[in-house]
Amino acid sequence: MTVSDIGEAGLLERVFPRLPESRVTLLGPGDDAALVAVRGGRVVATTDVLVEGRHFRQDWSSPRDVGRKAAAQNLADVAAMGGIGTALLIGLALPGDTETAWVDAFYDGLREECELVGAGVVGGDLVRTDHGITIAVTALGSMRGREPVTRSGAKPGDVVAIAGRVGWSAAGLAVLSRGFRTPRALVDAHRFPVVPYAAGPAAADLGATAMCDVSDGLVADLRAIAVASGVSIEITTDVLEVTPQMRDAATALGVDPVRWLLDGGEDHALIASFPAGTELPAPWLTLGRVVRGRGVYVDGQPSSDQGFDHFR
Amino acid sequence: MTVSDIGEAGLLERVFPRLPESRVTLLGPGDDAALVAVRGGRVVATTDVLVEGRHFRQDWSSPRDVGRKAAAQNLADVAAMGGIGTALLIGLALPGDTETAWVDAFYDGLREECELVGAGVVGGDLVRTDHGITIAVTALGSMRGREPVTRSGAKPGDVVAIAGRVGWSAAGLAVLSRGFRTPRALVDAHRFPVVPYAAGPAAADLGATAMCDVSDGLVADLRAIAVASGVSIEITTDVLEVTPQMRDAATALGVDPVRWLLDGGEDHALIASFPAGTELPAPWLTLGRVVRGRGVYVDGQPSSDQGFDHFR
Repeated sequence: MTVSDIGEAGLLERVFPRLPESRVTLLGPGDDAALVAVRGGRVVATTDVLVEGRHFRQDWSSPRDVGRKAAAQNLADVAAMGGIGTALLIGLALPGDTETAWVDAFYDGLREECELVGAGVVGGDLVRTDHGITIAVTALGSMRGREPVTRSGAKPGDVVAIAGRVGWSAAGLAVLSRGFRTPRALVDAHRFPVVPYAAGPAAADLGATAMCDVSDGLVADLRAIAVASGVSIEITTDVLEVTPQMRDAATALGVDPVRWLLDGGEDHALIASFPAGTELPAPWLTLGRVVRGRGVYVDGQPSSDQGFDHFR
Repeated sequence: MTVSDIGEAGLLERVFPRLPESRVTLLGPGDDAALVAVRGGRVVATTDVLVEGRHFRQDWSSPRDVGRKAAAQNLADVAAMGGIGTALLIGLALPGDTETAWVDAFYDGLREECELVGAGVVGGDLVRTDHGITIAVTALGSMRGREPVTRSGAKPGDVVAIAGRVGWSAAGLAVLSRGFRTPRALVDAHRFPVVPYAAGPAAADLGATAMCDVSDGLVADLRAIAVASGVSIEITTDVLEVTPQMRDAATALGVDPVRWLLDGGEDHALIASFPAGTELPAPWLTLGRVVRGRGVYVDGQPSSDQGFDHFR
């Protein structure tokens, strides 16, 4: 039996029971990030691995893009807990023939993204590989006294809202996959996301009951909240914008742009549930509500989306 | 110009100035681990990447061995600061045809090693790769109120001491490389190290002025302390044990076992400097002393060892 046979969920089922626990584990695996007790405090921690050819392609993304994306997807995980990224550790496996200019530009991109939240790079490891580039980023973050917002606190009656873009990265990927390099805004969105970092801590302050970032797809990540919280989520798509560029690209490619909105990942928007009646300031937009039951309903229809499986 | 052209040191020279800084960075890149301020406290953090075929081979190491080694080399970095590992994050890039039994045993090994210090696994990422297995481990740790022991505090007059084994892993690698599977003790030592974790915090309590773990080789890592501290280090080899098994293996392979002791990495012994007159309890053994000047001297001779370069 191989990891492809059982897929990501099957793999996690086998791995989780094997993981050692520690009394410093305030919040362990399974959410966007962990919360670790330290003497006198606590720290948010999360890690992500990017593999060349699967998570980025050198012919589509510049090294600066890859650096920004590598930092962004980890800093987004910290924001999705209601925290602020403070420190990154970068593990980098490089083929021996990697151009030093690639490495320079990668770290330049990493720094640009870190500067958006004031995070530093505090450590790392550089090793040689005989294969493609593999990047492992760990982000540490601060809750600044806030309680972490997990995926499991959504309650029937809550409103569901979104901050940030969806569908842009998926549209950009579709365009690139067909050999086009425009519309530029969509292609750029695939190269690295524009993450609404401040909306994470703001959501925590507004009393968010559950939150995560959209990394696998809007419906897939809403489902993650619904499953973790034991609730159903109903959304309508009218609040989600199909931009003119997205509509043009979809027409040119002969696809339905709404699928990009619902199934596209990697834009790292934040989605959260809030108690009914919460006044939501920009950039939060109300998307739907939490009800009793199971599953995710889109415009009244049950969604059968299964999300992105990293092993299938 | 490629990363092979400039090597690890050249690469680090380009990368370091590019790294963003943050006010939470109490101790940044360049030591065994970083120290990060968190609200009300601070946390030790370090990361390492292991690439199949370079850092482990599936025909030589079981998945349990690889799990132990992956945890051990990161927990050793925390110990080398005088800290205790508390939490690990595991990034794992796996080919789709990886047997699930491999993954199970890998995490079992990881857990066994973590249990030696009471560390938990708090997070991770599982992704698919089209190449060999790549493992990225980040360890967080606690100083328990101690000050971190960096590489840069050694002073002329200090004694230099070692805790733990050297040469065992290198001897085991030499044996395996020639197609042998015995002596078992040496081969096992290559598969995963036996790290004297408690000796790290103990050294901090004893007033250690500098410390690091032996990951690249005894002379190379002594040189790291000497360079960081602006001093010279003199050691004698008489205190280092060439075990009967090591001697027999060296004779069979026609090599000098003292090279294993001086140049062999990956046993993750701890080396430290202490103020003259410090009473050193077991497992610490005095190895030499810190003097004014530059370089590392072994039995009175300048050592020209350049250490292990990950990119050459």
